[in-house]
Amino acid sequence: MSDLLAHYPLVMEMVVRWGDMDAFQHVNNTMYFRYFESARIAYFQRLDVSDFTSNQGIGPILAATSCRFRFPVTFPDTLLVGARAIQLGDDRFLMEHRIVSQRHNRLAAEGDALVVMLDYRTGKKVSMPHVVRARILEIEEAAGNEVEGMIVS
Amino acid sequence: MSDLLAHYPLVMEMVVRWGDMDAFQHVNNTMYFRYFESARIAYFQRLDVSDFTSNQGIGPILAATSCRFRFPVTFPDTLLVGARAIQLGDDRFLMEHRIVSQRHNRLAAEGDALVVMLDYRTGKKVSMPHVVRARILEIEEAAGNEVEGMIVS
Amino acid sequence: MSDLLAHYPLVMEMVVRWGDMDAFQHVNNTMYFRYFESARIAYFQRLDVSDFTSNQGIGPILAATSCRFRFPVTFPDTLLVGARAIQLGDDRFLMEHRIVSQRHNRLAAEGDALVVMLDYRTGKKVSMPHVVRARILEIEEAAGNEVEGMIVS
Amino acid sequence: MSDLLAHYPLVMEMVVRWGDMDAFQHVNNTMYFRYFESARIAYFQRLDVSDFTSNQGIGPILAATSCRFRFPVTFPDTLLVGARAIQLGDDRFLMEHRIVSQRHNRLAAEGDALVVMLDYRTGKKVSMPHVVRARILEIEEAAGNEVEGMIVS
Repeated sequence: MSDLLAHYPLVMEMVVRWGDMDAFQHVNNTMYFRYFESARIAYFQRLDVSDFTSNQGIGPILAATSCRFRFPVTFPDTLLVGARAIQLGDDRFLMEHRIVSQRHNRLAAEGDALVVMLDYRTGKKVSMPHVVRARILEIEEAAGNEVEGMIVS
Repeated sequence: MSDLLAHYPLVMEMVVRWGDMDAFQHVNNTMYFRYFESARIAYFQRLDVSDFTSNQGIGPILAATSCRFRFPVTFPDTLLVGARAIQLGDDRFLMEHRIVSQRHNRLAAEGDALVVMLDYRTGKKVSMPHVVRARILEIEEAAGNEVEGMIVS
Repeated sequence: MSDLLAHYPLVMEMVVRWGDMDAFQHVNNTMYFRYFESARIAYFQRLDVSDFTSNQGIGPILAATSCRFRFPVTFPDTLLVGARAIQLGDDRFLMEHRIVSQRHNRLAAEGDALVVMLDYRTGKKVSMPHVVRARILEIEEAAGNEVEGMIVS
Repeated sequence: MSDLLAHYPLVMEMVVRWGDMDAFQHVNNTMYFRYFESARIAYFQRLDVSDFTSNQGIGPILAATSCRFRFPVTFPDTLLVGARAIQLGDDRFLMEHRIVSQRHNRLAAEGDALVVMLDYRTGKKVSMPHVVRARILEIEEAAGNEVEGMIVS
């Protein structure tokens, strides 16, 4: 496992598909967000948020995301995609993502994702359930990370 | 409107996105099926099937589809995508699709799609509601088409 | 045309495809970046950068991008996607993007894109050709915009 | 390895991405063609066609493809995607694809792909290089398959 992902509690292997590339013959920018998303969903699964979603109609939505491309990934390659929570607010948390190319053993991209808890029926933000909050802290602590508080801008 | 789509009751304009192209620098094969799908969904909307879906949990699913590529579409181009029903069975119908490049005024692709009516709760095939069947015949007749019966293979 | 895009020299109409939606039944986050990309490519076309690309092997690449999602777009909808240059450095420029839903007459998303000029053969950054720089200033001036200088971080 | 893929010389593992699903909450039909494509490209790599492509400008293109969907794949799942050549003509060959769900140990889809050898510069069909033809026969024979001749329709 790459040192570049040492503090990531969730790292997912993601095989680049030939069709992920665009006419510039490297992986299209939108695909990096697909890789982020895949790791994020896997992180959500660890939080058992789907119970809240089906029972209370509460769940996470993506409010904002960004990516800085470090070098152009090409097919074939197998990526390691990391997700971790770095800040925690009342109704939201901030995740950090990293993508490492195994072929080049090099950081390919990094970014973040602002996740907000929503009541899907009303469309309003809600406080994160205590169990979810506790689970995030537990996961990050086990990876040796401290989660900061979050000042809503 | 192209003669190539003369008998199509539904023709949809579809702008090619740069990102629809792949590393061969023409539109990726999966995108032609996306264009077919878009026209098919528009056709479904004319059938008002969504009422059946929300009230009775009955709706169309794609059972099979094919595409013959006539020439490689590239960005920029605006396509005309046709959908029509050519055969009608008890629980299914067969659609025919055509994609015409406006830039080249030429048939870019053609294909078909086998659509089956399903009870989403049980996953079993069901007879097409009479209103849907009547609506298909009405749409096709208005376009001067005769819809054949369908022998299930 | 929406006031929300008043200062955008390039605004592109983009029809949402049914397949742009994901399992949450609204447009997938990666698709917003596809919409940004489409508008950006159209902006590039106005800059006539493709001449530099084919003759000198110099062209723009996306170094970073971000998106803030304002409300979830769903099918059917037609979007207006804006692109404009707001900062200009020696070898790069910063673009701002906006997506307006025509169905809801409302800002759906906004974001930015850092574009860097690259020598495709060496993979090194290069100064933007004077003609390209002049063209950007001309386009933005015509839209009543002032383009700032850019301090490279 | 599934019996369903016993005669496939090339079987590729493909992890379903959450974003492969559409608003019907199962994998979108276009994605099955992406899976086929991925296996097909891997098969092409075994044929060493890329040498012909770079040296002589000769390479395979997809002329037609079809898919029959057996049951709806959902995330999470890991698929096995098979590719094999079943017919061989002068300037073309026909491939057969299968997708097996590992979660359900069941055939999810099957289809085919007609591949034609093209001179990329002229856009004309060309006879398949002898080495490529020999390589296909060798690969299929090693898997216990007989490759039929192909009558061009």
